[in-house]
Amino acid sequence: MQRYFISNDQWDYDKGQVTISSEDYHHINKVMRMTSGDIVIGCNENEESFELELSQFDDSTQTLVATIKQALNEQVELPAHITLAQGLPKGDKLETIVQKGTELGMRSFIPLQMDRSIVKWDHKKQDKKLNRLQKIAKEASEQSHRLMIPTIQSLQSLSQVVDSGEFDLMIVASEYEVKDDHKPEWTLSDIMNQIDSDQRVLLIIGPEGGISPHELTICEEADVLPARLGRRILRTETASLYVLSVLSYCLEENYNT
Amino acid sequence: MQRYFISNDQWDYDKGQVTISSEDYHHINKVMRMTSGDIVIGCNENEESFELELSQFDDSTQTLVATIKQALNEQVELPAHITLAQGLPKGDKLETIVQKGTELGMRSFIPLQMDRSIVKWDHKKQDKKLNRLQKIAKEASEQSHRLMIPTIQSLQSLSQVVDSGEFDLMIVASEYEVKDDHKPEWTLSDIMNQIDSDQRVLLIIGPEGGISPHELTICEEADVLPARLGRRILRTETASLYVLSVLSYCLEENYNT
Repeated sequence: MQRYFISNDQWDYDKGQVTISSEDYHHINKVMRMTSGDIVIGCNENEESFELELSQFDDSTQTLVATIKQALNEQVELPAHITLAQGLPKGDKLETIVQKGTELGMRSFIPLQMDRSIVKWDHKKQDKKLNRLQKIAKEASEQSHRLMIPTIQSLQSLSQVVDSGEFDLMIVASEYEVKDDHKPEWTLSDIMNQIDSDQRVLLIIGPEGGISPHELTICEEADVLPARLGRRILRTETASLYVLSVLSYCLEENYNT
Repeated sequence: MQRYFISNDQWDYDKGQVTISSEDYHHINKVMRMTSGDIVIGCNENEESFELELSQFDDSTQTLVATIKQALNEQVELPAHITLAQGLPKGDKLETIVQKGTELGMRSFIPLQMDRSIVKWDHKKQDKKLNRLQKIAKEASEQSHRLMIPTIQSLQSLSQVVDSGEFDLMIVASEYEVKDDHKPEWTLSDIMNQIDSDQRVLLIIGPEGGISPHELTICEEADVLPARLGRRILRTETASLYVLSVLSYCLEENYNT
């Protein structure tokens, strides 16, 4: 069923109604060609979803009023709060990473200007790029039946992020362990065992060239835990998917053990 | 270091030499512009890798002879043997799936003509498409430092694959469990706990429209285990990456527990 994210000020729970306007109105009316009586799912900003029955289409104001039929009590959000900080990669890989990261449950995304990022963002480009990523996150949220749209944050440096004090636990994907061919002090499973529901977790992934020695030092000093992601060399756009998949597995598909 | 897959008949271990010819010769000579004394990694068809020193470039025969310097004893292959059977998806998604599946350690790939595949392969197209996928698997194997190139098999039907008797354990990604919002009889972790090293595991992923009721019956009758992959709806090209990441996690990054 089609899913729309509707800002909190549009909802009137006493009257059992919600107003849908602008882009969503256009999508319902012109793209989906839905009419009065059709049903959609609406999500508010509190991660609640409701079945809505469309009515009162008004083309002059580009609004419609929908009746709230029932709350849906969907439980589809990853229990822990994952922020993905990704070193700027080449080409359109960032779009793939945001799309797949949204499917896999990340709640926030930070593009990182890192030492080995070949791409540089200037101020002019940044707004356009962030808007584009936010749009991709919205579409992926609808597609994967999320209850919220991940926040796309502005470009930051590694130090800014790891020193922000916003995270309970920080992980950095490290391929050094693969190359050195020795077992690291702790495994990814040791790290996963430390993650509980509602924890705020930061996941740092380097760009194509990996993480520089200087950046590894920044991570070490901020107590970021390095994790090996299997024995093969992963591309930068695969590394975040690996960790998010494993997080979902450990937090959502492991409940009998 | 650059990596080349060299067929077994090119190796002469008694003499400590290997002959490199045709495409690989061209790549070393013209693309990488390497010369006598340069070092590459060569993999034979027994999943062994060696450091090779290049010499005796002969442009008239398009061959060179390399000296075997040392065996590398790399352990980079996923312990279990994973075959990914993917319902034909739209566009160039199959290429992405083969590339990422190779990075994540699959050993064999089967394109499946499924009920809800919108794309159909005719006989003429098939060879071209399989060759293209095999090329992608080779490049991804080199990039991710694999010791073997996954085999791309020809197009098959679901029944052919599940009734082949070639697998110790078969898994099908099922999103029905997500929609029905009830806990399945077993979890993905129950399935993972059954997988040992050297087992031959089949992973079946449906196309965009999912798996038809008829196909689910085929799976049930063949004792294929349905698995939920987290609580969100994943795109078809994300589902295989999820399971391969989790397999790597369970078999390679969980050794202290």
